[in-house]
Amino acid sequence: MSYTRLRTEEEARYPLVGNGVQARIMTFVHQERRPVSRAKLAERLGSSRGRISTEVGRLVENGLLEEEGLAESEGGRRSALLGIPRSAGLVAAVDIGATHVDVALTTLGSEILTHKHELMDVRDGPQPVLGRVKAMISDLLEEIAAERGEVLAIGIGVPGPVEQASGRLTVPPIMPGWDRFPISNVFAGEYGAPVFVDNDVNVMVLGEHWGGVAKGVADVIFVKIGTGIGSGIIIGERLHRGIQGCAGDFGHICVDPDGPICSCGNSGCLEAMAAAPAMVLQAERCAREGESPAMMAILKEKGELSAEDVGEAARRRDYCALSIIRSSGRLIGQTLAAAVNVLNPSMIVIGGGVSHIGNALLAEIRSSIYQRSLPLATRNLPIVMSELDDVAGVIGASVMAAEGVLNIPG
Amino acid sequence: MSYTRLRTEEEARYPLVGNGVQARIMTFVHQERRPVSRAKLAERLGSSRGRISTEVGRLVENGLLEEEGLAESEGGRRSALLGIPRSAGLVAAVDIGATHVDVALTTLGSEILTHKHELMDVRDGPQPVLGRVKAMISDLLEEIAAERGEVLAIGIGVPGPVEQASGRLTVPPIMPGWDRFPISNVFAGEYGAPVFVDNDVNVMVLGEHWGGVAKGVADVIFVKIGTGIGSGIIIGERLHRGIQGCAGDFGHICVDPDGPICSCGNSGCLEAMAAAPAMVLQAERCAREGESPAMMAILKEKGELSAEDVGEAARRRDYCALSIIRSSGRLIGQTLAAAVNVLNPSMIVIGGGVSHIGNALLAEIRSSIYQRSLPLATRNLPIVMSELDDVAGVIGASVMAAEGVLNIPG
Repeated sequence: MSYTRLRTEEEARYPLVGNGVQARIMTFVHQERRPVSRAKLAERLGSSRGRISTEVGRLVENGLLEEEGLAESEGGRRSALLGIPRSAGLVAAVDIGATHVDVALTTLGSEILTHKHELMDVRDGPQPVLGRVKAMISDLLEEIAAERGEVLAIGIGVPGPVEQASGRLTVPPIMPGWDRFPISNVFAGEYGAPVFVDNDVNVMVLGEHWGGVAKGVADVIFVKIGTGIGSGIIIGERLHRGIQGCAGDFGHICVDPDGPICSCGNSGCLEAMAAAPAMVLQAERCAREGESPAMMAILKEKGELSAEDVGEAARRRDYCALSIIRSSGRLIGQTLAAAVNVLNPSMIVIGGGVSHIGNALLAEIRSSIYQRSLPLATRNLPIVMSELDDVAGVIGASVMAAEGVLNIPG
Repeated sequence: MSYTRLRTEEEARYPLVGNGVQARIMTFVHQERRPVSRAKLAERLGSSRGRISTEVGRLVENGLLEEEGLAESEGGRRSALLGIPRSAGLVAAVDIGATHVDVALTTLGSEILTHKHELMDVRDGPQPVLGRVKAMISDLLEEIAAERGEVLAIGIGVPGPVEQASGRLTVPPIMPGWDRFPISNVFAGEYGAPVFVDNDVNVMVLGEHWGGVAKGVADVIFVKIGTGIGSGIIIGERLHRGIQGCAGDFGHICVDPDGPICSCGNSGCLEAMAAAPAMVLQAERCAREGESPAMMAILKEKGELSAEDVGEAARRRDYCALSIIRSSGRLIGQTLAAAVNVLNPSMIVIGGGVSHIGNALLAEIRSSIYQRSLPLATRNLPIVMSELDDVAGVIGASVMAAEGVLNIPG
């Protein structure tokens, strides 16, 4: 892949933009995802054409913007459209899950150039995992013949609560050894670029809102169903993190005070009753008790079951598997119904590994929400699957990092 | 009360402000609630001192701002402070409840000048209720020797869901005859002023956030417990209405699928199990079955019980009354706990008639929330009683109307 290098390692530096107007111009162009005219920038940013032209001129000079063709004619002279060129620089986008790591290099405009997926256990601790992440970034840079200095920002999603002020994880339940670990320091020596860290689901909703099914939607709840259940919430086009940064924690809402004990110590949390491990536990019991010949066969062959196996059995109309999926869907739907009553969102997006196990889950979530929420609140409420799916995390990480670094005016 | 009239009936007109900068200046001074210097305005609005001085000059000329004393000396010349004078004009603030109406006249700066409370049944329908509201406004104008033309804006809170685009109620469950009634038309003939209508709890949270216990708090949930249970939500300093305007509907979250049928048609809604009518129903059963001699005595004397009677009995340590209150508090708290997990707010404010029945309710709500929410989300979460209490509605209505009319630039 040919790639024009504008910044060498020695030139790497931030802030990238000179002032607040430049920051707003770059953020607007980044959010638009297509080239924009000076006239539109002036109109949307409420600034004079003169001021916009001056600042755009400086951004073009610094290589952050480039003229990319002409606008449709509206009678007069066709005006030039501005976009973020590939040569502006790169963003390293990292999505760390409980059992995998995805790393992508994207343009500053958050288009993926190259992408790598590896299985990895987050419980191995920060040094081994982040060491591997660094190696993956290096491999990808080599692949596109780019240099470290071209990386203008690094965005990282992690499966735990992140304190925004410090960018550190705070008591992450499934990440032993990561509590308050200074993730950005690991990259500081090699990359002269700022590092942005946030919870994985916050990052996924950013991605889906920037370039997926929720593009341009004002209020979105993105629910990730996997080993755990969490959500990222956008309200009024902005990520809602909450005062301690732990907004969107659906997984630990109590759905049954008499239910099983959860990893958090409370009983009957949604996560303990409806996420992948709970489904697998019920499936294994069904298999052992001979209620499901299909799942018994898989269990005998592999020695264990996964949520995907439950999904596969359900697709083959296995009664037990279908009941397990419906029960999870019902609990997730009834919890989401409460959130719909509270927030009256414009859209609900379902993602995460368990969301792949088939239509039965989505159908049950939908029917539970429609049954339990106010009719007014669900009248026009789309409840849909993630569109970016496996790349929602890296795209969101790139969006977070790109818009983050473009908002540090000099 | 002496009152300088700047605008006569003939002069009444809006827009009040000439452009967007004037709108932002007036809104900022209104939100500050105390006089502000030109320098602070320039700093906070990110505008030049020159531009601010020019626009402030015009606002002073038009009587919307007035110099009110001097700032603390910081070495140099003490700068003049600007405030909204009483002579700028009036706001009529109306709080319509299920069984009462409160009307206040306030300054454009939302300070109450005079206030009237009347018992009234909203089920009488819009014409009789709004006719009485108009008469109350006239009485209050007479009381402070002011004229209709001085009323620059009218703000009205109503106990039902309001469609923002039209300012009309949409299928309000406890307001027969009000569905899609054009409230603002009733005032249009007599007042040359814009009318702003919103749900009562939205209006109350605006009031509490502007001048009560939640002043300056970024993310607040205000829960009103009375005949129904509803909430107003401020996120990022702004009212969150949701896409259909029905955000904050706590009352119809399902807390027990096997619970009693609710007025909305679903079963086991929080409102059907924990609001005033549910408490009264349980209390009357206790009284009839002889479990509570205290409440039996009141029931015999008055022929009925109220939520206040339950509160009074609880204060006298009546076991049944205490159990009823604790059971309501627990259900409300467990529903709020889910909202705390989802939103991670900075503060929860409890208001409404039932909130007066004593500390047992607040204690139970608090303990339920602290027990069921994430420790991180409740670490610094104040759960407090409304400070403005009975005037939260009229103050909020005034804030809505004042900031509304000041945001219509010419």
